[in-house]
Amino acid sequence: MRTQVVIVGAGPAGLLLSHLLGLEGIDSVLLERQTAEYVQARIRAGILEAGTVELLRQTGLGERLDVEGMEHRGIYLQWPGNRHHIDFTGLIGRSVTVYGQTEVTKDLMAAREKAGRPAYYSAADVTLHDVAGKPYVTFVDSDGAARRIDADVVVGCDGFHGPSRSSIPSPQVWERTYPFAWLGVLADVAPSTDELIYAWHPDGFAMHSMRSPRVSRFYLQVAPDEDIAQWSDDRIWTALATRLGVDGWTLQTGTITEKSVLPMRSFVSTPMRHGNLYLAGDAAHIVPPTGAKGLNLAVADVSLLAAALTASLRGNGELADAYSETALRRVWRCTHFSWWMTSMLHRHGDDFDAQLQLSQLRRTVSSLPAMTELADNYAGLPL
Amino acid sequence: MRTQVVIVGAGPAGLLLSHLLGLEGIDSVLLERQTAEYVQARIRAGILEAGTVELLRQTGLGERLDVEGMEHRGIYLQWPGNRHHIDFTGLIGRSVTVYGQTEVTKDLMAAREKAGRPAYYSAADVTLHDVAGKPYVTFVDSDGAARRIDADVVVGCDGFHGPSRSSIPSPQVWERTYPFAWLGVLADVAPSTDELIYAWHPDGFAMHSMRSPRVSRFYLQVAPDEDIAQWSDDRIWTALATRLGVDGWTLQTGTITEKSVLPMRSFVSTPMRHGNLYLAGDAAHIVPPTGAKGLNLAVADVSLLAAALTASLRGNGELADAYSETALRRVWRCTHFSWWMTSMLHRHGDDFDAQLQLSQLRRTVSSLPAMTELADNYAGLPL
Repeated sequence: MRTQVVIVGAGPAGLLLSHLLGLEGIDSVLLERQTAEYVQARIRAGILEAGTVELLRQTGLGERLDVEGMEHRGIYLQWPGNRHHIDFTGLIGRSVTVYGQTEVTKDLMAAREKAGRPAYYSAADVTLHDVAGKPYVTFVDSDGAARRIDADVVVGCDGFHGPSRSSIPSPQVWERTYPFAWLGVLADVAPSTDELIYAWHPDGFAMHSMRSPRVSRFYLQVAPDEDIAQWSDDRIWTALATRLGVDGWTLQTGTITEKSVLPMRSFVSTPMRHGNLYLAGDAAHIVPPTGAKGLNLAVADVSLLAAALTASLRGNGELADAYSETALRRVWRCTHFSWWMTSMLHRHGDDFDAQLQLSQLRRTVSSLPAMTELADNYAGLPL
Repeated sequence: MRTQVVIVGAGPAGLLLSHLLGLEGIDSVLLERQTAEYVQARIRAGILEAGTVELLRQTGLGERLDVEGMEHRGIYLQWPGNRHHIDFTGLIGRSVTVYGQTEVTKDLMAAREKAGRPAYYSAADVTLHDVAGKPYVTFVDSDGAARRIDADVVVGCDGFHGPSRSSIPSPQVWERTYPFAWLGVLADVAPSTDELIYAWHPDGFAMHSMRSPRVSRFYLQVAPDEDIAQWSDDRIWTALATRLGVDGWTLQTGTITEKSVLPMRSFVSTPMRHGNLYLAGDAAHIVPPTGAKGLNLAVADVSLLAAALTASLRGNGELADAYSETALRRVWRCTHFSWWMTSMLHRHGDDFDAQLQLSQLRRTVSSLPAMTELADNYAGLPL
């Protein structure tokens, strides 16, 4: 079998790339290790940058997003005794949209089926070959048959643990692990806030997010090796009420339907291209979730890559040659921003660090340039 | 002997306080451990914020400053291959002025002598008594005579090592030492730049500053325990040329007249008032020199304190009661800014930290809100 682009990984990055290439008449095949049901059920980020929303709309993926997505004009930043709204729309004329990664994935899967673009789910032993020359990928399909697909280009959208990155020889890697993690909680309760709350607290960071008008999402800073069994529902609600509390505001509680500990890591691997292999999204870089950059950064990679591959397959390799360098400019911007949001909001270090954080928070909610800088990064730089 | 305000320490903070109080008809006496000549010769900061310049002008201390001070509209930020100008005046309508601390001190000393305000230099064994009640200060004057001065108020402007701070019971202290120091160099050579250059370099931070059109001031990041004997003039010039180098620019060299290693520290002690004792400047807080906040922060304290003491001695204690809290808001802002400039520009940590620094630098020179935020903090918030 032969195609123009083999895309390893059918999460939102791979699906979107296949979609964008399809619109340009470029053929691709998606290979995914998991089942479609598994991919669709993965709960991840839920905040879409203005540019991400615009791209989805412009490429025919905006219908359900426009109905179900919740536009947020900004966020709340808080610390004990203080809750301040940062008004992105007022500051920079852009907003963000709450629309779960699961929903984006569903829309992309529907578009793929409608367009009849091929995808192999439950693909085992996916192996990349000769990526610097005439690339092909071998795998075992869901029926147990060994298969080979030859292609002009292979794109790794297969996440941090996927096989693609290891096909890049001698990568340069930067990594930072953080001395804390998030306890993520999903609850059947209407959000107690109209927009996200990011809270600094002596006990540790807390966040109030949401998935829908009836489903709330919460996060609590915990130890990286936290034993989730120690967190009863009662303890979770008490901690959330304490860390998120301000006078005159009440946290509504409900049934907790899911809880898990999420690690925090910054990771960048370069280059993002080797010969005819390109990496996009988590395959090349991971950001901590504070600031909601992970999915959006993958979308930015894919948007850049779709244009680069389209031009390259039509004979103009300029954008493709520049892909790694161009993509990495945004990667480092978002890596820095995510690190900055994380460092400002999580308790770590000593009491001097805590005072620096509070000083930064006070400044961020009171200085027009400081709050504009946060808004500009959070709502997302132009694609 | 009796006065209204005893000021311990006759550096720029103490001298300015005495000057400002004198303009309001409040009597004060200055006590200084060192000789006048020693105080005057101390080489320290040379960058005055817009508000500092305005205060000195408005209180009759601007004559020589207006002739000899060099107005700088901004600074240069650089890293290998890049030098960018941050135009404070264009961004926020304020500038800074290069005018050495020694010059400010000379002007203040001349004003003190002209006004006939009393000062005891070479005062030994300065001891504060009963600061929470009816305060007095004892000392041995330059003739060896034991003296006592009773006052309504005692102000400690006696720096980090002075005796005043220890009269505040159970202070809360925040401290950060940095894993690097500055090798400061004074040289008889015209500056090779019109405005200050702050340079990030893999070898470590470097800075090109100036004292006058014929005297340049340089700094190199070195180890905290650096042996200055290892730094020959040749090695210094080579390191400066390397770290400050950009294509098409040449560093002029000259005779090095002074070199010393300066420690880097952040330090805040609270409260800044106890009963009738008030602290101002380095007695209560130290910032690392990056960003040139030390002298300006002392001026801000003193400006606030002069108004507070004047009102208090006339029967309205409101400002005096709020002094510590009000002063500390600016102290923490400047502590954070100095830490931020220091952290962005000095090599420390690992390669991930270096990439965060470069990402922050690229953003600071390309984003209007980011460069405005730097300009606003550097040129100084309103007094």
